Amino acid sequence: MRRPLPFRLAVAAAAAVLAASPAPSTAATSAPSPANLSNLPPLYAAELENARSFVEGMLQAGVVVPVPTDPGGGYTHEQHKRNYRAIYLGGQLYRITGEKRYADYVRDVLLAYAELYPTLGDHPAASNQYTGRLFWQVLNDAVWLVNAVQGYGDVRDGLTIADREKIDAQVFRRAAHFLSVDSQATFDRIHNHATWATAGVGMTGYLLDDKNLVDRALLGSDMSGKSGFLRQTEELFSPDGYYAEGPYYQRYALMPFMVFADAIQRNDPDRRIFERRDGILLKALRTTVQLTYDGYFFPFNDAMKDKSLKTEELYQGVAIAYGQTRDPALLSVARGQGRTVLTPDGLMLARDLAAGKAEPFPFRSMLLRDGPQGDLGAVAILRRGEGPRHTALVAKNSSQGMGHGHFDKLSWQLYDNGHEIVRDYGAARFLNIEAKQGGRYLPENESWAKQTVAHNALVVDQRSHFDGDVKLADSIAPQQLYFSAAPGLQVSSGRVTGAYPDATITRTLVMADIPGLEEPTVIDLVSSDSRSAHTYDLPLHYQGHLMEIGFPVASNAANRPVLGKDHGYQHIWVDATATPAVGDGALTWLLDGRFYTYRFATDGRTKAILAESGANDPEFNLRREPVVILRQEKSGGASFATMLESHGRYDGASEQTVASRSRVSTMRHDRVSGMDVVRLTLNDGRRAAVVVSHDTDPAKGHRTKLGKDTIEWTGFAAVIPLAPEGK
Amino acid sequence: MRRPLPFRLAVAAAAAVLAASPAPSTAATSAPSPANLSNLPPLYAAELENARSFVEGMLQAGVVVPVPTDPGGGYTHEQHKRNYRAIYLGGQLYRITGEKRYADYVRDVLLAYAELYPTLGDHPAASNQYTGRLFWQVLNDAVWLVNAVQGYGDVRDGLTIADREKIDAQVFRRAAHFLSVDSQATFDRIHNHATWATAGVGMTGYLLDDKNLVDRALLGSDMSGKSGFLRQTEELFSPDGYYAEGPYYQRYALMPFMVFADAIQRNDPDRRIFERRDGILLKALRTTVQLTYDGYFFPFNDAMKDKSLKTEELYQGVAIAYGQTRDPALLSVARGQGRTVLTPDGLMLARDLAAGKAEPFPFRSMLLRDGPQGDLGAVAILRRGEGPRHTALVAKNSSQGMGHGHFDKLSWQLYDNGHEIVRDYGAARFLNIEAKQGGRYLPENESWAKQTVAHNALVVDQRSHFDGDVKLADSIAPQQLYFSAAPGLQVSSGRVTGAYPDATITRTLVMADIPGLEEPTVIDLVSSDSRSAHTYDLPLHYQGHLMEIGFPVASNAANRPVLGKDHGYQHIWVDATATPAVGDGALTWLLDGRFYTYRFATDGRTKAILAESGANDPEFNLRREPVVILRQEKSGGASFATMLESHGRYDGASEQTVASRSRVSTMRHDRVSGMDVVRLTLNDGRRAAVVVSHDTDPAKGHRTKLGKDTIEWTGFAAVIPLAPEGK
Repeated sequence: MRRPLPFRLAVAAAAAVLAASPAPSTAATSAPSPANLSNLPPLYAAELENARSFVEGMLQAGVVVPVPTDPGGGYTHEQHKRNYRAIYLGGQLYRITGEKRYADYVRDVLLAYAELYPTLGDHPAASNQYTGRLFWQVLNDAVWLVNAVQGYGDVRDGLTIADREKIDAQVFRRAAHFLSVDSQATFDRIHNHATWATAGVGMTGYLLDDKNLVDRALLGSDMSGKSGFLRQTEELFSPDGYYAEGPYYQRYALMPFMVFADAIQRNDPDRRIFERRDGILLKALRTTVQLTYDGYFFPFNDAMKDKSLKTEELYQGVAIAYGQTRDPALLSVARGQGRTVLTPDGLMLARDLAAGKAEPFPFRSMLLRDGPQGDLGAVAILRRGEGPRHTALVAKNSSQGMGHGHFDKLSWQLYDNGHEIVRDYGAARFLNIEAKQGGRYLPENESWAKQTVAHNALVVDQRSHFDGDVKLADSIAPQQLYFSAAPGLQVSSGRVTGAYPDATITRTLVMADIPGLEEPTVIDLVSSDSRSAHTYDLPLHYQGHLMEIGFPVASNAANRPVLGKDHGYQHIWVDATATPAVGDGALTWLLDGRFYTYRFATDGRTKAILAESGANDPEFNLRREPVVILRQEKSGGASFATMLESHGRYDGASEQTVASRSRVSTMRHDRVSGMDVVRLTLNDGRRAAVVVSHDTDPAKGHRTKLGKDTIEWTGFAAVIPLAPEGK
Repeated sequence: MRRPLPFRLAVAAAAAVLAASPAPSTAATSAPSPANLSNLPPLYAAELENARSFVEGMLQAGVVVPVPTDPGGGYTHEQHKRNYRAIYLGGQLYRITGEKRYADYVRDVLLAYAELYPTLGDHPAASNQYTGRLFWQVLNDAVWLVNAVQGYGDVRDGLTIADREKIDAQVFRRAAHFLSVDSQATFDRIHNHATWATAGVGMTGYLLDDKNLVDRALLGSDMSGKSGFLRQTEELFSPDGYYAEGPYYQRYALMPFMVFADAIQRNDPDRRIFERRDGILLKALRTTVQLTYDGYFFPFNDAMKDKSLKTEELYQGVAIAYGQTRDPALLSVARGQGRTVLTPDGLMLARDLAAGKAEPFPFRSMLLRDGPQGDLGAVAILRRGEGPRHTALVAKNSSQGMGHGHFDKLSWQLYDNGHEIVRDYGAARFLNIEAKQGGRYLPENESWAKQTVAHNALVVDQRSHFDGDVKLADSIAPQQLYFSAAPGLQVSSGRVTGAYPDATITRTLVMADIPGLEEPTVIDLVSSDSRSAHTYDLPLHYQGHLMEIGFPVASNAANRPVLGKDHGYQHIWVDATATPAVGDGALTWLLDGRFYTYRFATDGRTKAILAESGANDPEFNLRREPVVILRQEKSGGASFATMLESHGRYDGASEQTVASRSRVSTMRHDRVSGMDVVRLTLNDGRRAAVVVSHDTDPAKGHRTKLGKDTIEWTGFAAVIPLAPEGK
C-alpha cells in the first residue's frame, strides 16, 4: 500500500501556494515565515484571523474535556464541539504558522481525550437507538472524528512516539472502532449519517496507515461494496446530483463526501474519485448551490429556514471543488459566503477571488431528477430574471426522502422580490435551543410540519399522503410528466399514484408571460382521478398581509375554531370561510411593497377557508402563518385551477401605490377531453387562454372550441391571445 | 416692500455654485450649459437624472389634468400628485438645463389647471369637513400649491404676459384664496395642515408680489399674529424642537416650515426667520433626526411604521438646514437618505458630501420637552452604544398631541440589535391602498391602535386613558419627574395625573449596566396611587417567538377567547393565562439571534395573560402581534416591577447557541417608604439591587435594610452590588 501522507502533502502544497504569492518568501518547502503571511488574500487572511482568535480563546481557557452529560445545545455538547474545532483549526494554524504552541495545545487536548475515551459508554442523554459516546447521538461523534482527525494529521509527525501511540490507540482507533463496529448499523446504512462515519473512519485509516479501516470505510464493514462510502456516492445522489433528503440535508451530507473524497484523491489518486459516475460529487456540489434562492436553501422536508450557503459544511466543499475545477462561478459563491477554509485550496480560491476572477454563478431553470437511477420523481426549478429579487418556482415532485421527508407530494413554492411568497414551513425545530426540547425536533414536527396540509399539496379526506406512513411513502415516488424551461412559458407537470388508495393526483404548474399582466404569473392545475366521494383540500401557504378578499366571508371574528382533529388540521385556526359564487374568487395580499393576487375558478361549490397555523400549540412551538384552503366535496375526481398574479408596488417612503388591485377581471377554467383551458379577461379588456394539452408530443396540434373562442396550439402548453368579448 | 425675486435669486445662486465646480464653466450668471452639468457630484447628478426620467415620462404622456373624483390612492388623486411633481421638477430642470421644453410643459400643465380650477367646487370624495378642491382633503390642495408655486417660479418670467396673467389669476390666486379664505378654519389653526396652507399662500404671495397674501400667511387671516406661520413656529414646537403630534407628523410638518422659511429668508432676510426663538426651525430639523432608530421614526401616535428619514419631505429640510449651517453631521443624514433636492443648497450639500466632509450624526440620549413652553411632559430617549444595532429606549411622557395622538401616557418602546423589541403598533392604516378603506385610517385605528391596551401603558379597569376622550386628553399632560443620561445608569421617570379619576400613575424606567448581565437591561417600575378597588393591566407588546415560559400556564389551545368587549380588548385573543407563584415569573423570546427575557416580581396574585392582537377583525386589517399582559386586581394602589434582560446569541449559520436562558435566577421587589428596591440574584450567585429613591436631590443619601441586605446610595437611582446569599 502507498504510504499515505495526506496531511504532510497538504503542508507542502500550502507552502508552495504561499511561495507563489508576490510577498517575499523563503524556501518553498519550509514552514512559512510570518513574512509569508503578510500578503495573504483578504478572505484567507480573515479566516486565519478568525481561527487565531478562536484558538487563542481556547488556549487561554486551557484543556477542558468534560465527561459527556448534556444533549444538543447543552454545555458538554457545546464544549466537545468547541474542542473538535480547536483541534482542527489548531492543527491548521500550526501547519501555516509553524508556531509550536498550537501543536502543543492540540496534543494536550487529544491526550485528555485519550484519558476520557476509554471510560465512555453510551451517552446518558441518548434519545434513540443511534447513541453516541461523546455526544447524545452517534452522528455527532462521527462529525467530531472527521474534524479531529484532520487537526491531528497536522501535528502527529511532531509528537513523541509515546504520545502518538497513546492518541492513536486511545482516541482515534477507539473512535473508529466505535463508529464502524459498535455502531455498525449506522455505518452500513446508505444515509448521510453513514457518510460522516465512513469519512471519519476512512480518514483515520489513511492517517494511521490502516488499510483495513480505509477499506471498511470505502466498501462497508464487510468490505463487499454493498455499503460504504463508494456505494453511498452511487446511491445517495441522483444522476443530476440531487440528494433524496432534500437541500438542507444535501448541504450537510456534502461535507463528508467532499472532505473524504479530497483525502481519497490525495492518497489513492488512481481511484479518480472526483470522476466517478460522471463527476457526481462535483455535480452534487453545484446542484446544492442551485437549490437556493437569495443564498437560502429551499426549505422543504425537515429544514431549518435560516440555513444558507453561509454554512460551515460548504466552505470546505466549495474550496475543494474549486481546487478540482477552477470554475470561476464557484468564486462568486465563495464571495457570497464571505468565508473559506485554511487549506491550500482555500488559499488558491481566496487568491483568485482577490484577483477578480469570479464569474456569476449560473442559476437557471432546471429539472433535478431524484433517485439513484433518476426515476424517482424530480425537483423542478423554474427561474425568471436574475439577481437577489428574481422569481423562482420550485415544484417538489421528488421522492419521500426517508425519515426527514415530508408528506408533501407535488407541493410547490414560489419566491419573488427576495421573499418566499408561497411557502414551505420547513421543520418545527429550534436547533440547539435547550428550552425547546433540548434543541431536538419538536412534537409539532410530526403533528404539523410533516403533514400534507402544512404544505401546498392536495389533501384528500383530511388525511396526509400515504396516511403518514413513511415506509409506504418511501416505496412510491411521483413521476415527472413534463418539464420545459422555454422562456416565457415554463412548465412542470407531475403525478403521484398511491398517495391515496383512490386518488391519482396530477399537478401542472405554468409560469407564463401573459400580455397585460406583470411577472411572475403562475397557473396551477391540480386534478385527482378518483372513483368515490371525497373531500379535496388545496392549501396555499402564503406570506403577506391580506389587503382584499374579493368575495363575502363568514368570519370567526370573536371565537376561532380549529379546523380538524389530526393530520395537522388540529393546528389550524379558522378565521373565516366562504363559498364564492360561480366564476372565480380572489384574494390579494401585500408583502414588502409587492401585491399578490391568488385567484381560483369555481363552479360555486368550492369553499375557501382562510386560516392560520398555531392552534393546539400550548408551548408556542409553531410560527403563526396564514393559509387559504380551497375545499371541494365531490363524488369522483376533482380539479382545481388557480392563478397567482403579482402586481403593483407600494412604496412607503414615497407614499406611492401603483396597481394595488388585480389586473384580472375574470378567470374561467374548462376541462375538455383531458385538456385544461384557463381563460382570462383583464381589466383592460384583453383576453388570453393558458392551455395545457398534457400531451408531451411537441409536434402534436390541439384544438378546442369554447363558446365563441376557438383555441388552437401545438405541444404541451401555450398562452393564446383571445379576441376581446363581443368581437 | 422689497421686490421679491426668490426664484430668480435661486437661479443665480445655483449658477454660482455650479461655476465654483472644477468643470469648465461660462459666465457665472448665464444659464448653465451642458458642459457645466458634466461634473456634478453623484448625489445631485442622480437626482437630476431621476427628475429627467420622471418629467420625460410626463412629457410623453402629455398634459393630463382630470376632473377630481377619486379619494386617496385613486387615479385622479395620484394624477394630481404626479402633476405637482412634474410642475416642481419641470421648473427646476428648466432652471438648471435651460431646456425650453421643460418650461413649455410646466406652462401647458398650468394652463390646463387654469381651465379646470374655476370650475371646481368641493371634492366629491370628501370624507370630513376639511374638503379640498383638487383632492379629497384641503391638506392635499395645500401640498399641491407648495410644490406648484415653486415650479411656477422657475418658469414664470419667461411666459407671455397673457399666459402669466391667466395662470396667476385662475390658478394661483384662486388656490391661495381657497386655502386662506374659503378654508379659513384650516388656515388659522395652529396645526401642521395650516403650516402647509400658509406656506403655499405665503410663497404665492412672494411670487406674485402680493404683500397681502404674504402677511396673511405670516400673521394669520386677520393679520393679528394670533395665527399664521410665525405663530406656528412658536406654538407647534417645544423649546427642544419637539412637535406635539410626534415624529411621524414632525417629519411631515417640517417640510412646509423649512421651505417657507427658506423663501422668507430670501425675500425678507431681516426677519431672521432661522434665528427666531433660538433657532427653533433648525433645532426641530435635528430633533426630527434624533427621533429615529436605524433611520426609522419612532412610530408612536398615528404613524406608518415604514416611514424613515428617506422621505421626500426631509430631503428639502436637510438641504436647507445644511445651507444655513454647513453642519457636517447633516451630510451623513443625506448620505443615509441617498437623496437630495435640485436647489443650490442641494448642490452644495452633494458637493460637500462627495468631498468627504460628512461626519456621523450625533445620536445621543436626550430629553425632549413637549409643549410650547416645554412644560407639557416630554419624550425621553435613552441610547446605549452606536451604529445600526445600538440600543434605544423611548419613554413617551409627552402630551396627547391632538387628534392623531394615542391614549398611551407613559408608554415606552425598546430598540435593540436593529429591531423594535418592545413595540408600538403605530397607526392602523394602509396608506394609499384603495382596498383598505381608500387608504384612509381604518376603523381599527380608533378601536385598537389608539387605545391604551394597544400600548405598553398601564390600563385601569380595562378602559383607555381619559376614557378615550381626546379633548380631555389634550387638556392634561404628564410630568417628566426625572431624567438622567449618566453612562451605565440612565433613568427616565414620569407621572400622569388625570388619565383616570382615581389613579395617579408613575413610571420609572432604568436602563442600567448590571455586573453579570448583558446589555441592555431595563428595569420598569410602574405604580398607581388609587383609593378604590381596580383592575390594573400592564401590557408588554414584544416582537419575537416565545422560547420559554417559566411558569405553568392554562392554554386556550383549541378555542381562543377574546379578552374583552371594548377599549381595544375586543381585539385581543387570549392564548393562555397563568398566576405564577410568589417570587417572580419570566418568559423568554427570540428575535434575530438574540434572546430577551421579560421578568416580573409577583406576590402570587399577579395574573399573566399571553395574548395576540387580531380578534374581531373580519377585514384582516390588523397585524397579529404577541402581547403579555400583567394583571393585578387590588383595592387601593398597585405597583409593578419588571425587567427586560437581553442575553445570548442564536446563530443559524454556524448552529451556535449561547446563553439562550436568562442569567437571572430570582428577582424581588420591595417598596419601602416610597422607594423601590429590586433585588436580583444571578445564576452565578452574584447579587445586585437596583434602587430608586424617587428623590431628585442628587446629593441626598438613602438607606434601607431588607433582610440581611443593608442598601445605601445617593440620589435618584443606583445599582448596588449585594453580598451573595448566606454570606
